[in-house]
Amino acid sequence: MNCVLTVRTQQSGLTEFTRDIDTIVRESGVEMGLCTVFCRHTSCSLTIQENADPSAREDLERWLNRLVPERDALYTHTAEGPDDMPAHIKAALTATSLGIPIMNGALVLGTWQGVFLWEHRRGAHTREIVVHIGS
Amino acid sequence: MNCVLTVRTQQSGLTEFTRDIDTIVRESGVEMGLCTVFCRHTSCSLTIQENADPSAREDLERWLNRLVPERDALYTHTAEGPDDMPAHIKAALTATSLGIPIMNGALVLGTWQGVFLWEHRRGAHTREIVVHIGS
Amino acid sequence: MNCVLTVRTQQSGLTEFTRDIDTIVRESGVEMGLCTVFCRHTSCSLTIQENADPSAREDLERWLNRLVPERDALYTHTAEGPDDMPAHIKAALTATSLGIPIMNGALVLGTWQGVFLWEHRRGAHTREIVVHIGS
Repeated sequence: MNCVLTVRTQQSGLTEFTRDIDTIVRESGVEMGLCTVFCRHTSCSLTIQENADPSAREDLERWLNRLVPERDALYTHTAEGPDDMPAHIKAALTATSLGIPIMNGALVLGTWQGVFLWEHRRGAHTREIVVHIGS
Repeated sequence: MNCVLTVRTQQSGLTEFTRDIDTIVRESGVEMGLCTVFCRHTSCSLTIQENADPSAREDLERWLNRLVPERDALYTHTAEGPDDMPAHIKAALTATSLGIPIMNGALVLGTWQGVFLWEHRRGAHTREIVVHIGS
Repeated sequence: MNCVLTVRTQQSGLTEFTRDIDTIVRESGVEMGLCTVFCRHTSCSLTIQENADPSAREDLERWLNRLVPERDALYTHTAEGPDDMPAHIKAALTATSLGIPIMNGALVLGTWQGVFLWEHRRGAHTREIVVHIGS
């Protein structure tokens, strides 16, 4: 079973959407299986991170921005704006797809794990995520 | 269903092979499912990136080469050549496997997404990729 | 089929557990399918790397420690110790899940590939890995 999710982002950074995936898994009725989450973009990505303390996510965002800054003299791909090439690099360093097993009808995420869309562009975007549920 | 693909690389950098995976998906006859792409090597890797403008891929390659240069004094694993240890590090920072859902008999890749083998060694190589199609 | 594995780590670095996954695959009796390995933590991660020469793993660990050092002035998430925020960043840069096809009843790993838990915290930890076997 496949399902297309829309995640709206306001600016760069991490947006949690674990609950949306949880709902899809529950409604699928699958007790034991595999949930695959796929991001249909090359300037945002996926990550599983701590969802308790927001400071961890803010540090992640600021650390990655320092590693991959805008207006690096190395970039030649600049036609789509100063945040575009850094966004592609950040997407390459993180995940485009995630596979999460399902047990007892629920994702086997650890206590502190949440699933996040990591927006790497500056502006607001509507992002498409495809969720596949298999047995 | 599994299928072994061969991707030939001439030098380091990104080689697109989306079309080869597309063919396997189409021939499988699976309408709704999951395609998993797996790289059988530790000195090259996989990435999903923009396949429109080649400058984005060239910047990715040059950025990663600067982050993980050859002949870093830190390396002790140098017996297999100056490009070997950087290749392992680059592979660890990118993907060895990718899961891409299948809908209506086709990969759900976004408009600008292509699947690439990222060769991290300098010379020509023949790389093995295993593609699994499940329901 | 799902199986929960426990991997004990003594300190930060790579611990191979390919054999544990091999055993699960063999006991599942699945001849052709997909094995997904999932890490239930945000301060350790997964990687597939060369399992022949230990120096490659030691270089990986030292390189990543240099890229993501402790006590970086950028960090605000410091309440859980100096090794906690670096651990989250390292986990984001590596893999939380891996998909490995199964052919002829065995993982299709390349000759030099092993599956490793990459511990990013300093102390000893007991880590939970979920292995899913699908067809």
